[in-house]
Amino acid sequence: VTQPPDPIPRTVEWADGAVRLIDQRLLPGELCFVDCRTVDELCQAISSLAIRGAPALGAAGGYGVALACSGAVAGGASAPAVAQAAAGAAARLIATRPTAVNLAWGARRVLAVAEIAARGGLDLSAGGDASGDAEAVARAALDEAEELAAQDVADNRALGHHGAALVPEGAQVLTHCNAGALACVGYGTALGVIRAAAEAGKRPRVWVDETRPVLQGARLTAWELDRLGIDATLVADVMAGSLMASGDVDVVVVGADRVAANGDVANKIGTYSLAVLAAHHGVPFYVAAPTSTIDLATPDGAAIPVEERSPDEVRRVGGARLAPDGVAALNRAFDVTPAALVTAIVTELGVAHPPYDKSLRRLVEAAPHRRPLRTP
Amino acid sequence: VTQPPDPIPRTVEWADGAVRLIDQRLLPGELCFVDCRTVDELCQAISSLAIRGAPALGAAGGYGVALACSGAVAGGASAPAVAQAAAGAAARLIATRPTAVNLAWGARRVLAVAEIAARGGLDLSAGGDASGDAEAVARAALDEAEELAAQDVADNRALGHHGAALVPEGAQVLTHCNAGALACVGYGTALGVIRAAAEAGKRPRVWVDETRPVLQGARLTAWELDRLGIDATLVADVMAGSLMASGDVDVVVVGADRVAANGDVANKIGTYSLAVLAAHHGVPFYVAAPTSTIDLATPDGAAIPVEERSPDEVRRVGGARLAPDGVAALNRAFDVTPAALVTAIVTELGVAHPPYDKSLRRLVEAAPHRRPLRTP
Repeated sequence: VTQPPDPIPRTVEWADGAVRLIDQRLLPGELCFVDCRTVDELCQAISSLAIRGAPALGAAGGYGVALACSGAVAGGASAPAVAQAAAGAAARLIATRPTAVNLAWGARRVLAVAEIAARGGLDLSAGGDASGDAEAVARAALDEAEELAAQDVADNRALGHHGAALVPEGAQVLTHCNAGALACVGYGTALGVIRAAAEAGKRPRVWVDETRPVLQGARLTAWELDRLGIDATLVADVMAGSLMASGDVDVVVVGADRVAANGDVANKIGTYSLAVLAAHHGVPFYVAAPTSTIDLATPDGAAIPVEERSPDEVRRVGGARLAPDGVAALNRAFDVTPAALVTAIVTELGVAHPPYDKSLRRLVEAAPHRRPLRTP
Repeated sequence: VTQPPDPIPRTVEWADGAVRLIDQRLLPGELCFVDCRTVDELCQAISSLAIRGAPALGAAGGYGVALACSGAVAGGASAPAVAQAAAGAAARLIATRPTAVNLAWGARRVLAVAEIAARGGLDLSAGGDASGDAEAVARAALDEAEELAAQDVADNRALGHHGAALVPEGAQVLTHCNAGALACVGYGTALGVIRAAAEAGKRPRVWVDETRPVLQGARLTAWELDRLGIDATLVADVMAGSLMASGDVDVVVVGADRVAANGDVANKIGTYSLAVLAAHHGVPFYVAAPTSTIDLATPDGAAIPVEERSPDEVRRVGGARLAPDGVAALNRAFDVTPAALVTAIVTELGVAHPPYDKSLRRLVEAAPHRRPLRTP
């Protein structure tokens, strides 16, 4: 089956020897791309939110390690030195954003491939190219990064299909932040669920939380839904309670930056408030997250590091001065929603229900790309 | 006892034959005043939020009717024509903002005095000036408006004193929107409670919700607390749940635009979400409202009209484009918090506890300025 062309370009891809990103800082005003030709440029792009969203960061982490490899090869490095450059890049990339687990997952996955290749291995060992030469290391790293990126889109389509079954015909769906194509390589997780519901003819109507302070909802989710032709209405974050009280929210669907082994969910600040409100009003609260976002090594939400970002994101917006100069501000970028408030977690392999410690482990262990790499 | 000079000028006063307002659209960048010389200018100032806040609107409504009277006198109107002008002005003023009951209360209070004076009465009937002449009507209206405004400050100080007893030593207090001096003639209601707690040496620390879409918290509350030297930290509205979950909120204190007879509270959009979160976390949720905000004629929250404002307030801020042009947006300006979520309601005459139908009626009936006017 051929898919129609996607109205939203790939968020991140490999092009002309660089990592090419949609510069999300400029949306919705302009659709521009930025080419990161060094790991430092990519780290800066990640820190400044030119690219964000857990699955997109996973792909960026992978491509970033591949970029380090190709840079080292261009500098004449040996195979072990290429692997060393990859390890250094992975560490720097992972340090840019502590909460989203996919970033570390993608970077480490490609690093592992590079390290195996540098030892002369992977399944190349069966062929003639078992020399562990530098170019083979870089090629193996890039192949793995491309594979991760392609898998992301396929996984999100599968996730969307599973999640669409949870969305009633004509449902009013509230979402927070941006868990769309722009938060992934393509298609989206929470918006993937909405998109799949729309593709199934269910005509969802979406409430888009603007998502202060960085306004990913107003800037990115509203832009995506407009491109997709899905009915969307922007609201200030403070309006969610009122909408639920007036019976205008049938379902809440959000993404995740990390899901702990017990089902606690770290996601954009404000998600937890929505979960409390949803429980208060008897509205189902769904989390859409590929298995790459599930971190069995993190036992529960208390163990998830929550990033604090610059207070200036709260004090100003779009260059406009909002608050008195010098006022103190706190800017927690994420919060943690306890598993008890989560109705279900939608993955590419199916829907996990409580008790999550069991259901999540079962899904992760079934995920092909979570299996250990073959080593020589 | 002489009070030290207030670091925050009067929000609204009578000056040079005009209604002089702090132009709150320009705060915190500039502290400027605007003189409204006609009722139309005042209506425009109210609609565009140059002045806002239920008690401030009560005073503005009163002054607006006085302004109509003085304008009619200057145009040579007879006493009955002055009263007619006052009635027309009251109707136009009341129509500008439907939710805050104080606006109607203040306008009608001064209109009633003007109408009585035009009939040659009030307690002037005992003296020699029972002629019902036009100037006497305007003078009586202005006297009543000035009395309402002065009473507002005195009431808020009393309210603050009662409320301060509910604030623990060193408490972390979350507030929403601006219920400070700028929402009143002076001193403030919710911020009056915090201010009185600070004056009592309790060193409160305040979380200031920025309060999208119009950012009254970021722009006005942060400015007031800075001027008052009270410890304040600005947060995005979405952070309240996270702060409560981490044990960093001891008390929530908000103002009100209207309190129904059963204790349901209309206040700035987002208040209801805070009340649900506070209940979920066992945090006391206090509403600070002078008795002029209590509307016994409104049985419950369902009967309170909730104003919708322009979607552009959500789409843009400070001239910055946030969302794609043409995206739909909904902008409910207020929400209703059911009485069951309100721990107590603090008034200038004391603290009302549930059941509110009884406790609120008792307070309102005890309020001297709520008693019927003496008629000749």
